Amino acid sequence: MEAKMTESKLYDLLSAHSIPVPPYKSIGFQENPSIDFFPAALKIESPKVVHKSEYGAVKLNITSNEQLAAAKAEIIKNVEAKGVKLDDSDRFIAVKMCRGEELYFGMVNDPVFGKTILFGKGGVLLELYKDVGYISLEADKEEVERALRATKISKLLDNFRGMGDHMASAVNFVQKLQKFIKANPKISEMDLNPVLLTSDGLIAVDARVLFEANAVQKAARKRSNFFDNKKVAVIGASTEPSKVGYALAKNALSFKGELYFVNAKGGELMGKPLYKSVPEIPGDVDTAVIGIPGKFILDTIEQLAAKKVKNVIVTSAGFKEVGDLEGEEKLIALVNKHNINMIGPNCLGYYMGASSLNLTFGTGNVKDGGLAVVSQSGAVLAALMDKAAQSGIGFSHIVSVGNMADLDFADLVEMLESDPKCKMISLYVEGMNRGEEFLAAVRKCKKPIYLFKSGRSEASKAAAFSHTGNLSGNYEMFKGLVEGAGCTVVDNIEALIFRPDLSNVKQALIVTNAGGPASVLTDYIEDRGKKLYKLSDADIKVLDAILPFNWPKANPVDIIGDAQSGLYRKTLEIAQEFAGVDIIYVIVTPQFMTDSDNIAVLLTEKFKKPVIPIMLGGGSMSNGIKLLKEKNILVFDTLKGATDLL
Amino acid sequence: MEAKMTESKLYDLLSAHSIPVPPYKSIGFQENPSIDFFPAALKIESPKVVHKSEYGAVKLNITSNEQLAAAKAEIIKNVEAKGVKLDDSDRFIAVKMCRGEELYFGMVNDPVFGKTILFGKGGVLLELYKDVGYISLEADKEEVERALRATKISKLLDNFRGMGDHMASAVNFVQKLQKFIKANPKISEMDLNPVLLTSDGLIAVDARVLFEANAVQKAARKRSNFFDNKKVAVIGASTEPSKVGYALAKNALSFKGELYFVNAKGGELMGKPLYKSVPEIPGDVDTAVIGIPGKFILDTIEQLAAKKVKNVIVTSAGFKEVGDLEGEEKLIALVNKHNINMIGPNCLGYYMGASSLNLTFGTGNVKDGGLAVVSQSGAVLAALMDKAAQSGIGFSHIVSVGNMADLDFADLVEMLESDPKCKMISLYVEGMNRGEEFLAAVRKCKKPIYLFKSGRSEASKAAAFSHTGNLSGNYEMFKGLVEGAGCTVVDNIEALIFRPDLSNVKQALIVTNAGGPASVLTDYIEDRGKKLYKLSDADIKVLDAILPFNWPKANPVDIIGDAQSGLYRKTLEIAQEFAGVDIIYVIVTPQFMTDSDNIAVLLTEKFKKPVIPIMLGGGSMSNGIKLLKEKNILVFDTLKGATDLL
Repeated sequence: MEAKMTESKLYDLLSAHSIPVPPYKSIGFQENPSIDFFPAALKIESPKVVHKSEYGAVKLNITSNEQLAAAKAEIIKNVEAKGVKLDDSDRFIAVKMCRGEELYFGMVNDPVFGKTILFGKGGVLLELYKDVGYISLEADKEEVERALRATKISKLLDNFRGMGDHMASAVNFVQKLQKFIKANPKISEMDLNPVLLTSDGLIAVDARVLFEANAVQKAARKRSNFFDNKKVAVIGASTEPSKVGYALAKNALSFKGELYFVNAKGGELMGKPLYKSVPEIPGDVDTAVIGIPGKFILDTIEQLAAKKVKNVIVTSAGFKEVGDLEGEEKLIALVNKHNINMIGPNCLGYYMGASSLNLTFGTGNVKDGGLAVVSQSGAVLAALMDKAAQSGIGFSHIVSVGNMADLDFADLVEMLESDPKCKMISLYVEGMNRGEEFLAAVRKCKKPIYLFKSGRSEASKAAAFSHTGNLSGNYEMFKGLVEGAGCTVVDNIEALIFRPDLSNVKQALIVTNAGGPASVLTDYIEDRGKKLYKLSDADIKVLDAILPFNWPKANPVDIIGDAQSGLYRKTLEIAQEFAGVDIIYVIVTPQFMTDSDNIAVLLTEKFKKPVIPIMLGGGSMSNGIKLLKEKNILVFDTLKGATDLL
Repeated sequence: MEAKMTESKLYDLLSAHSIPVPPYKSIGFQENPSIDFFPAALKIESPKVVHKSEYGAVKLNITSNEQLAAAKAEIIKNVEAKGVKLDDSDRFIAVKMCRGEELYFGMVNDPVFGKTILFGKGGVLLELYKDVGYISLEADKEEVERALRATKISKLLDNFRGMGDHMASAVNFVQKLQKFIKANPKISEMDLNPVLLTSDGLIAVDARVLFEANAVQKAARKRSNFFDNKKVAVIGASTEPSKVGYALAKNALSFKGELYFVNAKGGELMGKPLYKSVPEIPGDVDTAVIGIPGKFILDTIEQLAAKKVKNVIVTSAGFKEVGDLEGEEKLIALVNKHNINMIGPNCLGYYMGASSLNLTFGTGNVKDGGLAVVSQSGAVLAALMDKAAQSGIGFSHIVSVGNMADLDFADLVEMLESDPKCKMISLYVEGMNRGEEFLAAVRKCKKPIYLFKSGRSEASKAAAFSHTGNLSGNYEMFKGLVEGAGCTVVDNIEALIFRPDLSNVKQALIVTNAGGPASVLTDYIEDRGKKLYKLSDADIKVLDAILPFNWPKANPVDIIGDAQSGLYRKTLEIAQEFAGVDIIYVIVTPQFMTDSDNIAVLLTEKFKKPVIPIMLGGGSMSNGIKLLKEKNILVFDTLKGATDLL
């Protein structure tokens, strides 16, 4: 239902919430009009006249009350000439004509993130440039400003060409909109277009508001006591090494608390008894991982509930992802009934430290560290773990959320925030269920959060749907909102594990045996918003002592084509001492004298700064690359790949 | 010198070249004004009144000749009230007030590309969005339209929201500007801002033109007879295998014509006599490669000129790149004097087929093929050759242009266009000397040209300068102009060798053992402007017969996590027959059952379509990746890397 609201009613409504509108006055049919704001426009307000301009019912550029009276008379004449009979129920509105750049503010009700404010350039360009800021209703002053500044058009607010500082007034305008929308929960859509940027700040000169008959209030959902375990059970522990249940049991074995294995066949596994059913387990269970066929799962969870279980991880597949929505809904209802936290179904499991708790069936060897990874794709997670193992990256938590039927990103961010072992969080997101709750969790979280979102394009939305059944929203809105709340959105998957280590990098130094590739790398580094460190006179002096006369005396440090490993070593030893350098890229190109194998050996050593080798070329670099990989050193064979992680 | 041109003079000038301006009329001081276009604006035109608005010397919204007369009287009153005495030398201009979207057209005189027309949104947004089209004065109708369409704002010209089709009129407007600028060679800068997009087409309502006292006419330069060789000399051929001169001689040895080696020491090399100097060579020389110290080069070229040499390749360094501008200028003057084509100095050499002519000191083994590569960086070229050798890519020509003191990109494109062995051209560009000539060569060239440009960012411009001494221009302008002329600009170096093979790819199919990475790959493929092939019902039926029941029946073809090499094989055998598929990506993720080594073996086989393996993960994929690389199969370990080449 669209509001059948006249322009004056709308201005009344907006003004009542302190949203600035132009000076205006509603004028009765018989009234002798008088206003004190010029130039003004006069328009009829009558349900009988829909297309005002066509009926000659709009008069512009009125500069005196005499002209106003004449304009009113002329409008009445024009409209009646079209055969419309006016009476005392019809009114007029006089509005001051304001000038300024046209901006746009609006509101949509997103299925994932709820009511969200949009900001951009007014008029046709909003559509053309898609330069839109997205602002949550819960965003505070700083978050609102961050969201506004995410647009290019926001530069107009920062004394652009001497037009004055309007950022504070724009933030204030958005805060009033937030209050307005919250105070009127039936508003389902809104367009303020244009909002004029005048020397006196922002003024909404036209508005359209859509109301919904029934606004739905969401029920709050409360979680707690995540994975605070003393007693753990593996349901479906198997004696056959080729089975998932065997891997689950084997990984769980290092758990320091009480550990129970359950398998209907009974017997023994890894020196522990195999209980034939959950009721046979002596005492209660805090946490259980379930790797048995789908049809037995509901009964098993009922039995676990009787054992006061708090957390279950369901690795088994066969639910929403193969179309069994009903089965998944039963599962959700069951865990809700017993207030159980569930991860999965259709997942690889949950890990919180090899000696703490490893309820996964992953094969890779995981090192302990401060990074927590939560992934909606098991395959992506497995590939990341594999890469991390090869590069010596360690983890505090690994969570494969699978179909995300219960615990979701909002819950898990909340959980990870409260665990001191976790220092940084990386999320691989396909679809988001409770967007508002996720943003709230991100705002509360003091740890850096890195996020990759798949399903940006239309075609891939279809792919994601067939994969886990979650719908993806508008990527730009998603990115705007989660960045506004404080996430760092990365644009390639590998950055989820490598970027947290490199998050403080601001200035880079390049050591190279060729100028061309260094120039290209410089472009890529700047594309990523980082800078090249500028060599001081003292830096140049110390490098001059070891480098050939014709080195360019600047960063990139080109140590010239005939450089061998010895010169690379001397240069790195000096460069690692430069205080302003946060990362050193080492480019090796295949030249006549290049001893790439020896250079690779050198690069396996420890340096004071992160050193990233880039071995350009094919066959002549393959030994060196192999050697570095074996020693868990991150190495690249393209310039672009090496900066994608920044 | 800025034109001291009144508005009416400017309108006279533009109208004289058929560039549309609004209806206007110049009015004398004593004249009783009469016009037939309304609404109009009236302004004074007097050198005594610079800031018209402040003097009350502009009147808007004039709707009748009575109002016009009154406005004129009021302006005179206002100006004289400010103490300015007007007389018969002062005039007025009446201009019709037009409405429409504000566009921008301008012209700059670029040091590389010469006079270039710019197009964008008028007003403050040009600066904010940097959405600018660049148009060469020599661009024909199609090229003009392509350049306009490269901007987002050009959508306004395509019946945007029912605003009418204005593309043809915009192209026509630019063609008139081209003629106008050519007819007035002293114009050095121009701003038409705004140009209004009205229902009647484009109208220039304000203009500023800058004139230069002395316009310079460039001398034309003519090249011919590139590398049409029968007699070749290697100057500096060396008997020491560690020397460049040895590699040059060895590579040259396969030349089928007459081949002479020169070395001051004399003796013999590879069964051929070593002449002690150029004059000792029996008979004439067409082409010589020179790998001797810089100080001997000028004399050597003089001696070669006496032998009627047509082409020289100077691999020796020590010129502009180490600051010896004078030495390089002498070299240029010398080859110009004798009308010799020169490649270099400071380069890796020139190759036109192993059995035709290989005057390089590269070490890699080069396969014959249809791709010509021209590179301004020797190191980048060496790395590309190395990668190409590893992936079985073949070349018709390899040119390392070094300092590009003589033959440049314009010459080489012209040369390659005329050689039928070359089917596609790839250029690695750091800086461009003769931009207009390059664009002309590209326009004439019928072969696809791929181009990578380094030195996009400010910092890297400095790096490029210290490297080869060439200046880089504005990257956006460069990209706009060369794309307009017909190049494909690629954004990573590797694409220079891989993309030419993949240039006809429109639709991709993905075969995967996991949905998540396939969804991400889909995003990247769409980012590159390519599409996923849509499976037909028949396709689905034939795949259904071999795939697990729960495959998603769509592309990406997810053959499910437990897939092994046998299922990959069957799927590929079927998928390669789908007519609409141009390329097949194969994703392998490390899952419980994945036999990645066997899958790699399978992927070394020949398929009817290009098959690109993506082996995701670290250690568990390293054997497979190694195997594929050994067999010259292009393989990736990241999703992004695999699509960067599209």
